[in-house]
Amino acid sequence: MARYIKSVKSKAGIAPGTLLYDDYQEVPVSIDCYLRKNENTIFSQITLDEVIPIVQGDGNFWINITGTPPLSWYEKLSQDLGIHKLTLEDILSSNQRPKIESYETYNFVSVKMIYKAKQKGQGALMEQLSLIETNKGVITFQHTELDTFSGIRSRLENVNTRIYKLDPDYMVFCILDTIVDNYMIITEKVGARIDKLEDQLLSGAKMPHFVAKFSAHQRELNVLRKNVRPVKEVMIQIMKQDNVWVKPEHLPFYNDVHDHLLLVVETIDAYRDLLSDLLNIHSTQVNNSMNEVMKTLTIFSAIFIPITFIAGVYGTNFDYLPELHYKYSYFIFWCVLVVVAGAMLWYFKRKRWF
Amino acid sequence: MARYIKSVKSKAGIAPGTLLYDDYQEVPVSIDCYLRKNENTIFSQITLDEVIPIVQGDGNFWINITGTPPLSWYEKLSQDLGIHKLTLEDILSSNQRPKIESYETYNFVSVKMIYKAKQKGQGALMEQLSLIETNKGVITFQHTELDTFSGIRSRLENVNTRIYKLDPDYMVFCILDTIVDNYMIITEKVGARIDKLEDQLLSGAKMPHFVAKFSAHQRELNVLRKNVRPVKEVMIQIMKQDNVWVKPEHLPFYNDVHDHLLLVVETIDAYRDLLSDLLNIHSTQVNNSMNEVMKTLTIFSAIFIPITFIAGVYGTNFDYLPELHYKYSYFIFWCVLVVVAGAMLWYFKRKRWF
Amino acid sequence: MARYIKSVKSKAGIAPGTLLYDDYQEVPVSIDCYLRKNENTIFSQITLDEVIPIVQGDGNFWINITGTPPLSWYEKLSQDLGIHKLTLEDILSSNQRPKIESYETYNFVSVKMIYKAKQKGQGALMEQLSLIETNKGVITFQHTELDTFSGIRSRLENVNTRIYKLDPDYMVFCILDTIVDNYMIITEKVGARIDKLEDQLLSGAKMPHFVAKFSAHQRELNVLRKNVRPVKEVMIQIMKQDNVWVKPEHLPFYNDVHDHLLLVVETIDAYRDLLSDLLNIHSTQVNNSMNEVMKTLTIFSAIFIPITFIAGVYGTNFDYLPELHYKYSYFIFWCVLVVVAGAMLWYFKRKRWF
Amino acid sequence: MARYIKSVKSKAGIAPGTLLYDDYQEVPVSIDCYLRKNENTIFSQITLDEVIPIVQGDGNFWINITGTPPLSWYEKLSQDLGIHKLTLEDILSSNQRPKIESYETYNFVSVKMIYKAKQKGQGALMEQLSLIETNKGVITFQHTELDTFSGIRSRLENVNTRIYKLDPDYMVFCILDTIVDNYMIITEKVGARIDKLEDQLLSGAKMPHFVAKFSAHQRELNVLRKNVRPVKEVMIQIMKQDNVWVKPEHLPFYNDVHDHLLLVVETIDAYRDLLSDLLNIHSTQVNNSMNEVMKTLTIFSAIFIPITFIAGVYGTNFDYLPELHYKYSYFIFWCVLVVVAGAMLWYFKRKRWF
Amino acid sequence: MARYIKSVKSKAGIAPGTLLYDDYQEVPVSIDCYLRKNENTIFSQITLDEVIPIVQGDGNFWINITGTPPLSWYEKLSQDLGIHKLTLEDILSSNQRPKIESYETYNFVSVKMIYKAKQKGQGALMEQLSLIETNKGVITFQHTELDTFSGIRSRLENVNTRIYKLDPDYMVFCILDTIVDNYMIITEKVGARIDKLEDQLLSGAKMPHFVAKFSAHQRELNVLRKNVRPVKEVMIQIMKQDNVWVKPEHLPFYNDVHDHLLLVVETIDAYRDLLSDLLNIHSTQVNNSMNEVMKTLTIFSAIFIPITFIAGVYGTNFDYLPELHYKYSYFIFWCVLVVVAGAMLWYFKRKRWF
Repeated sequence: MARYIKSVKSKAGIAPGTLLYDDYQEVPVSIDCYLRKNENTIFSQITLDEVIPIVQGDGNFWINITGTPPLSWYEKLSQDLGIHKLTLEDILSSNQRPKIESYETYNFVSVKMIYKAKQKGQGALMEQLSLIETNKGVITFQHTELDTFSGIRSRLENVNTRIYKLDPDYMVFCILDTIVDNYMIITEKVGARIDKLEDQLLSGAKMPHFVAKFSAHQRELNVLRKNVRPVKEVMIQIMKQDNVWVKPEHLPFYNDVHDHLLLVVETIDAYRDLLSDLLNIHSTQVNNSMNEVMKTLTIFSAIFIPITFIAGVYGTNFDYLPELHYKYSYFIFWCVLVVVAGAMLWYFKRKRWF
Repeated sequence: MARYIKSVKSKAGIAPGTLLYDDYQEVPVSIDCYLRKNENTIFSQITLDEVIPIVQGDGNFWINITGTPPLSWYEKLSQDLGIHKLTLEDILSSNQRPKIESYETYNFVSVKMIYKAKQKGQGALMEQLSLIETNKGVITFQHTELDTFSGIRSRLENVNTRIYKLDPDYMVFCILDTIVDNYMIITEKVGARIDKLEDQLLSGAKMPHFVAKFSAHQRELNVLRKNVRPVKEVMIQIMKQDNVWVKPEHLPFYNDVHDHLLLVVETIDAYRDLLSDLLNIHSTQVNNSMNEVMKTLTIFSAIFIPITFIAGVYGTNFDYLPELHYKYSYFIFWCVLVVVAGAMLWYFKRKRWF
Repeated sequence: MARYIKSVKSKAGIAPGTLLYDDYQEVPVSIDCYLRKNENTIFSQITLDEVIPIVQGDGNFWINITGTPPLSWYEKLSQDLGIHKLTLEDILSSNQRPKIESYETYNFVSVKMIYKAKQKGQGALMEQLSLIETNKGVITFQHTELDTFSGIRSRLENVNTRIYKLDPDYMVFCILDTIVDNYMIITEKVGARIDKLEDQLLSGAKMPHFVAKFSAHQRELNVLRKNVRPVKEVMIQIMKQDNVWVKPEHLPFYNDVHDHLLLVVETIDAYRDLLSDLLNIHSTQVNNSMNEVMKTLTIFSAIFIPITFIAGVYGTNFDYLPELHYKYSYFIFWCVLVVVAGAMLWYFKRKRWF
Repeated sequence: MARYIKSVKSKAGIAPGTLLYDDYQEVPVSIDCYLRKNENTIFSQITLDEVIPIVQGDGNFWINITGTPPLSWYEKLSQDLGIHKLTLEDILSSNQRPKIESYETYNFVSVKMIYKAKQKGQGALMEQLSLIETNKGVITFQHTELDTFSGIRSRLENVNTRIYKLDPDYMVFCILDTIVDNYMIITEKVGARIDKLEDQLLSGAKMPHFVAKFSAHQRELNVLRKNVRPVKEVMIQIMKQDNVWVKPEHLPFYNDVHDHLLLVVETIDAYRDLLSDLLNIHSTQVNNSMNEVMKTLTIFSAIFIPITFIAGVYGTNFDYLPELHYKYSYFIFWCVLVVVAGAMLWYFKRKRWF
Repeated sequence: MARYIKSVKSKAGIAPGTLLYDDYQEVPVSIDCYLRKNENTIFSQITLDEVIPIVQGDGNFWINITGTPPLSWYEKLSQDLGIHKLTLEDILSSNQRPKIESYETYNFVSVKMIYKAKQKGQGALMEQLSLIETNKGVITFQHTELDTFSGIRSRLENVNTRIYKLDPDYMVFCILDTIVDNYMIITEKVGARIDKLEDQLLSGAKMPHFVAKFSAHQRELNVLRKNVRPVKEVMIQIMKQDNVWVKPEHLPFYNDVHDHLLLVVETIDAYRDLLSDLLNIHSTQVNNSMNEVMKTLTIFSAIFIPITFIAGVYGTNFDYLPELHYKYSYFIFWCVLVVVAGAMLWYFKRKRWF
């Protein structure tokens, strides 16, 4: 189950900028490289040692690094490319708040990818994506193999797409766009389940697991919101810097992502409100049901307790109990019982209890 | 039942600006065209092919396109009139957040029309209206036939109205004005039903369907709010750009729409507060009722259980049970019962239970 | 019962600026005119035809128009005095959001007057006041006869008052001041009733009508808030324009009204919080009461049900039931009953149920 | 019991600036005067007639006026010292919102003093303090005798204190400082009682008066907040005007008061949150308790009702009831009773009801 | 148990700037001094008298003063180093709101250190840290021995660390960084306990101590929030002053701390929301459980009360009670009982009560 924060205990008191995986699980390194040379974009799998020469080279590039490279390689990155130690610390961390930071020679963006798990019934997975944008290209870091880039990869194979030119500016947009689209898909999935929950609730069906389901959905929305909302600030900051990093002709695209993000955030908030309404409705239904139950009990009790008492009286063994000996006593006795019970029923009917 | 978001799954990972209906249901195209020539405004039904020449021509115009033109036509629109691909993507989408976007040669506005269904008992319908304002005229896009423009159409037939001149600036105002007026009508309808619900609740009538009604109204208000509130930002942005697109003499009109919008939004919020109060009141009423029920049960039980016990004692078959044999036992027995029951009644009376 | 919005259906789709009473009930027109000539302020009742000449004349004036003049007269007002059609539309409407609008030759202010009904037990009445301030005087429009201007009228008869000079600027202040003072009186009346409700609630008295009273007060506060809060914005806008319309020496007076308005708004909000606390307290009291009721029931049941069972056992007619035949059985039987009942009492005592 | 607003009825419609006690109770006038002459600060009791000469004189001064001077004296103050009529109206009022107003020749500050009552069990008292700061000294007005100035008085007797110089600027600081310190003391007292209430609640003690105590504390906090929060704005406005009225070397002192005020406001808000949590906890405890009660009742009923029924069956007087005549019937009868009761107990045990 | 505010009673009315421990408990003074001379950083324990010469000397320094130096020493500090009396008052206080204040020759920062107690089960401890930054070094004041500086101390022993140069600017960053890291550790610990509480709650386990635990966690979060949130303002103010006090190359480090602080604050808020959801869920569970209990009671009662009544009827001793004498009466009697009980069961089954 996803928790709000992960352990950072090991790092308190350690010098800032110290390179350290805060949640290390070794994953083999695999590097996809798209490199633009002579008007062509060529895909190749490269090794860690080839990354720095490409970044320092001429062509536009997108390098996507999957897995956990050794810390020594990050040290080299810092020295050769002038990446700040704090940036590398953020890349190594798996619990970074979404943010953008501008340095002289590069922009650093950290966001969370959220995507559907491939196995059914496993819910959404979340992974941190770190992105370094230089004036020539984009390097992305992801700790595990799964990502949301399949659409981008297929478009990169098509010469006629705008992305094919590997303009770093447009590349960053495409990556953020696909991530935000996945936010929407996940939000929609959670929302569909909440809508279903509402239908069940309002249909009056018995819902023994309502609380558990409610709580699970609420948690999912909370995790989504916590990771999606700071991205709004990231987008706003990117669009502020338009003069330097974002080409004017790409601004409408960033605007579009920002729009989608707003829609996601509003949808998440709308579903949070809906969930909270559902709990209220459930609670009201339980109360209504309890009220019905109590009325049933009270009607039964109020009818039978008095007449049981009357029967009890004539079950006593007093020597001198005159009523017992009249011939029509038993008949009158039943009449009294019926009258008492009828009076009770009339009383509750008048009170509109049924 | 209206859901918060519609499916966008098919689009994640697809290149932005790709033209695609996200929720395609073919509707035959029908185009109304009002064209101003030689001081006259002439109405005609035109075909898709005639749209672009008219837009490129001299006269002021309002072209209202109903239905789903083929994607190829949109491509042509983009090439011949310089409409941005993202704008066309937004027109094709049916789940666009209300917004305004200014491009060099045109303004793009996307809002939701909400109007009463013609058939009774069907509630409100919602449709997206996309609007392109050039310096000569206005093109509006709606996917289905129903709209809220009947008032505008009848005024366009009257030479003496201000709208007759087809000034694009004033035309946009008229369209937004009629849309916002319909927001108010729908809000008023929902509000009237909520007011009725409140009257029923406070009259103390039995309300077995309160929760369902409450939930339906809440949902309606949520959908209204979600679609109406962003229009406020649209209005504010339109009025900011007064120097370029809005003529100074039309500013008071836009101000008026903004005012009505504020009234709608405040009314929606007031009804949301009212609804939430109603749930609280209902819940308190249920609790009060339950309390009454419990008191009734307790009074009955507390009076009859002790005296039934006493009757039970004298129903035992002990050989040696002296009280049974005294002549006045039965009379004393009844006295005891009456005293016990009376004491109980006095006790509950003192506790103000009835 | 006051509703949140009134019908505007008839106006949707009609050209803006069309003059139309949206809630027409004919009220005979009656016009009070205070006119300043030769250092004297003279009161007279005038007719509709005399209004325009006075406004166009030399002296300062306050013209208070009560009732519903014919639409044709408003048309003349628009033509002769240059009043914008939208302003007149707002005057004719009875459901205008409080606002201020500045035109070149006049200021338009629309607020709600709220005042105590003359008949007892009728609560507060509300009426729209429209005000046009020119550089010479003030015209006010009210649809019905009742108003809150008696204090102003009596001061206008006194030569020594500042108001006697009919300075339009100071006149507007006096009108807003008396309206805001009435807000405070009404708020105070509602507040006094809420304070009384709280005292009753905390005194532990039986409150069968609590929910209805609560709901009525909440509604009153909501209506007050909805009409008072936008006036704050009106005041802020008036004080912004001090260079043109408000003479510097009158600014402290406007400041004073703004201060009172803040006090009213804070008081309304404080009472809303208090009301919501009262519902919580009521709900807690009901729960506590129910808890007591349940405990009483449970104590009675738990004491008598076991001993009634024991009596039942010895009421059976088994041929072989040895205990029935011992001499001291009945005595022992009572001892057992007392012990069982005592044990129960001790158990509930230890659990602190009473 | 402190109410939110006091009566202002008598003033609606009366000309603004009319001098009038809105809540008049005659209190004899007593005036303390500290006057600085020849490097010495001399204390004396003076009469109303001596006030104006001292204010117009040379030396720095602090004049503290206790009680209700006649209205004619205020008129003189207005004429001789140029105090605005609205300022005097605010001094006479006892229901003024805390505020600061700057006039050309003086600053006017109105705040509420809140202090512990001298008699035990009487809670906090509140009194309005009006303060006029001229460039030479400070005049303070309080309607009753009690105040929070004892610390200031004793420091004024000591030649070595900074306050001894009677710098008006520093004097105002000292007065506000002592008032804010008293806010903190009162907040702390209320808070200590709330903390005690929490301890009692969490210790599980029986709390029959919880609701009344809760409500009293909530009211105290509301009154505190209503009077303390606007003082924050007053402080911010004082510190904005530093160039004119506050000497730069005194700014850190004002900063300090502002800091304390923030602490008070945050503490009040924290206790309000705590109180609201306490009500929730109390409510949950009542529900839990009711649940326990219901379980007890249900267990008793479910065990004894079935076996009482069985005893009832064998108490019937059917002629042909074979079981009654077997020798071991009574023994078997008890076995059945024990088995049934045991089964019930096992069932509830399994359901974890006890 | 941590309370919101501590006693400040003794200080109200006392001249501001008076040096006084507001919560005095004598702790022996112990002073750690790191002094940079000739490119080396030397650690030594020094006495109070050595502090001022070092501060006035040449080298960079970090002096950490633990305990309660005599008031006379603070007087000397004020005179010799020009520390403002209000700064010293804040250092002596133990209940200071986190803040930063800039004076001409130094910056003053006051924050709370929160750290894990060394003994198990004791929860978090909190201590005020006061920090004076001059252009040469940093003096820190802590009243008790415990702190969160062990990581800093070990890095100061290592020549290769950036901190070794004792740059005051970087030193302040390191101190704030370690404090904020400890906020995160404590938040995480509280959060882990809340996550555990949620798991228990959702697993359906019996939770008799839920309310106490809930309340304890809520209090912890409130104390955390109250002390952590103002630090955000401190950080923002530090980063504003970058031109003077913070060297540009250290700004990314401060940014990093600010980022971590945001993460802590968001995490605290997220856990507060979660806690409040948990109370709602608990409350719903209790209600559901009560509903189940009531249904059980009602089913038992409704089945057995009617048939017990029937048995009671045939237990009466009427002389003429014909049914008693038929041979199959007893058999029919049982049939009736079974039919009545069966009908009840069928009725509740249809109502889906079990």
